[in-house]
Amino acid sequence: MAPHKLCMIPGPIEFHEDVLAAMSTPATSHVDPNFVPIFGESIEMVRKVVLSENAQPFIVSGSCTLGWDMMVNLLEQGDEVLALNTGYFGDHFSECLEIYGANITTLKADVGSRPTNDALKEALSSGKKYKMVTVTHVDTSTGVLSDIKAIAETVKSISPETLVVVDGVCSVGSEEIRFDDWKLDIVISGSQKGLGVPPGLSVVVASQQALKVFKTRSSPIVSYYSNWNKWLPIMEAYESRKPAYFATPAVQLIYALHASLKAITSQPMEVRFNEHRKVSSEFRQTIRGLGLKTVAQCEECSANGMTAVWLPEGIEIPQLVPSLASKGVQIAGGILDGLAGKYFRIGHMGISVTEPKRGHIDKVVEALTSSLTELGYKA
Amino acid sequence: MAPHKLCMIPGPIEFHEDVLAAMSTPATSHVDPNFVPIFGESIEMVRKVVLSENAQPFIVSGSCTLGWDMMVNLLEQGDEVLALNTGYFGDHFSECLEIYGANITTLKADVGSRPTNDALKEALSSGKKYKMVTVTHVDTSTGVLSDIKAIAETVKSISPETLVVVDGVCSVGSEEIRFDDWKLDIVISGSQKGLGVPPGLSVVVASQQALKVFKTRSSPIVSYYSNWNKWLPIMEAYESRKPAYFATPAVQLIYALHASLKAITSQPMEVRFNEHRKVSSEFRQTIRGLGLKTVAQCEECSANGMTAVWLPEGIEIPQLVPSLASKGVQIAGGILDGLAGKYFRIGHMGISVTEPKRGHIDKVVEALTSSLTELGYKA
Repeated sequence: MAPHKLCMIPGPIEFHEDVLAAMSTPATSHVDPNFVPIFGESIEMVRKVVLSENAQPFIVSGSCTLGWDMMVNLLEQGDEVLALNTGYFGDHFSECLEIYGANITTLKADVGSRPTNDALKEALSSGKKYKMVTVTHVDTSTGVLSDIKAIAETVKSISPETLVVVDGVCSVGSEEIRFDDWKLDIVISGSQKGLGVPPGLSVVVASQQALKVFKTRSSPIVSYYSNWNKWLPIMEAYESRKPAYFATPAVQLIYALHASLKAITSQPMEVRFNEHRKVSSEFRQTIRGLGLKTVAQCEECSANGMTAVWLPEGIEIPQLVPSLASKGVQIAGGILDGLAGKYFRIGHMGISVTEPKRGHIDKVVEALTSSLTELGYKA
Repeated sequence: MAPHKLCMIPGPIEFHEDVLAAMSTPATSHVDPNFVPIFGESIEMVRKVVLSENAQPFIVSGSCTLGWDMMVNLLEQGDEVLALNTGYFGDHFSECLEIYGANITTLKADVGSRPTNDALKEALSSGKKYKMVTVTHVDTSTGVLSDIKAIAETVKSISPETLVVVDGVCSVGSEEIRFDDWKLDIVISGSQKGLGVPPGLSVVVASQQALKVFKTRSSPIVSYYSNWNKWLPIMEAYESRKPAYFATPAVQLIYALHASLKAITSQPMEVRFNEHRKVSSEFRQTIRGLGLKTVAQCEECSANGMTAVWLPEGIEIPQLVPSLASKGVQIAGGILDGLAGKYFRIGHMGISVTEPKRGHIDKVVEALTSSLTELGYKA
């Protein structure tokens, strides 16, 4: 691999050599008999990553944000949506849903925490009939992990018809997700985080219940590019190893996705979940050892694929980020409105976690410790 | 480059080694100081490719089809649109615009020809106030080239406020386009055709007049992912060499686009236009020499980046395509409803044209000639 700064932001993450090699697959027709099974198998492996038997994956050229857009397939004008909000991405997901007709009721937690299950129960019992409950599994702005298992359990017990919609952009491939067991309806993600592939693919998984809502809706879907009426036949065709055409798929990115998914699904997903849990727990210990505080306020609400950390007094992002960059490590500043300059974010996903011999985490810790010292910080 | 079938369909086309190498750029943050100028320069070079001084390019993660979707920024409910239709892609572009509120009047030509300028004049003088006239520069289904210079001249002389919207998916980078001189308002394209980059980037260029229509519209834009209110600040930021965030750009694809645009803009665009004209003219001569007929019915309405050819009687696509594939050449079947099995399509764009030493065109001609003979065809 060419020399480069270690990319330790919460996505894009570091890519395996095999994934990068697949990115430079020579020109191949999107209907070439060599490519058709690559696409078909990728669809199947996405299903395996979220531990589902019969959910419907969509793999479409676009950024993760396009997955939010696809909720246009489920929403009709005036639909009530309950949004569990743990940060910046929760805000913008709601903004997207409002454009497509949703009336949003928000349960917003303090920065670093998450709405309680009691608050969710109360909202669900308010008399409003919610079309969907949305939750950001890991809000990349705060590193707060939502308990989507408990949320889905609560939603389905009180209102079985309400769809559980998970923004899993920063969780698929790094956090435990049991799509079928937990009765999830939508998981939205993309290529460049836990799936370990360069950015450019939107990956969405829909339950049969969600597809039923889509198929039985009464108003037309006011979208062309995000319209599942266009994409569903394409996904079904490639999965049955037949080419089909709506819009040219990103052939090279799909070869790269295939390479990464093959590695990810080569062992039980539990192993991957545990590796991410172990590394993130150790990383938080290191952060505490440095006398620093994570934005996430408790262990169980801390993401396993990334950590957001409050800056010590007197040190600023425009000092810290370049200092780490000069040591060959790229980290990210904050992104929360009004607090962006107050904290930094580090990703620990994919090969940086599953292949400890690469020494990525050690290198980040070492660079961070030195930079803080150089900038005058004393633990 | 890894051994592979020559990809001689009308896109994706063959990619230069430098472009493929850029595809495997190691993980890089989308706000990394190394990446910001790569994105900024790419925006500038797109403007150069369409010979404009101050039009606004949008480079967004998605397929070419996403460019159609972006017309949601210009359309309001009930807007009148005049659609010049030369094939399958004209049909579907209109279908997209209808979803976003357009009332379509279609001028549809016979297969292989294009609507006349007189028909256009008549339609523009009918009394209807058209918000836009749409035209597919090269309809990839037929290989028919539209005279967008004459069309724009006619539109602007009769109805100066009407926007001229060009689907340039299969023309940008292979056909002459003079965005400013010809007073075009929108050119829609993508990465994998004349721009010579793997699929996954939507590339759209908008005139200042189009931006004014967008900025002064009265109804809200019912789209999140295709919404220029989101993308315009991002394009402006990167062009002024500042990072910005709406959705993570496809970093590796943009490195690849940069590599290809650098090569394309390293000489005057006229040289590139003429190279494509010369090769396509020779290719059509060869086709006629074989006793075959192109779908495009005249020289001046024949695309310079691809050719569609009627199959000789007794030979079928499921025979011809695999026969060429066995000789290491991938070509495409037809795509027009009802006629898909009656013709085949060959792309001649990018390095296959500008670097004749690669021998791509010779190899296609040789393989096609042998395959036809083997399948019993006698000229």
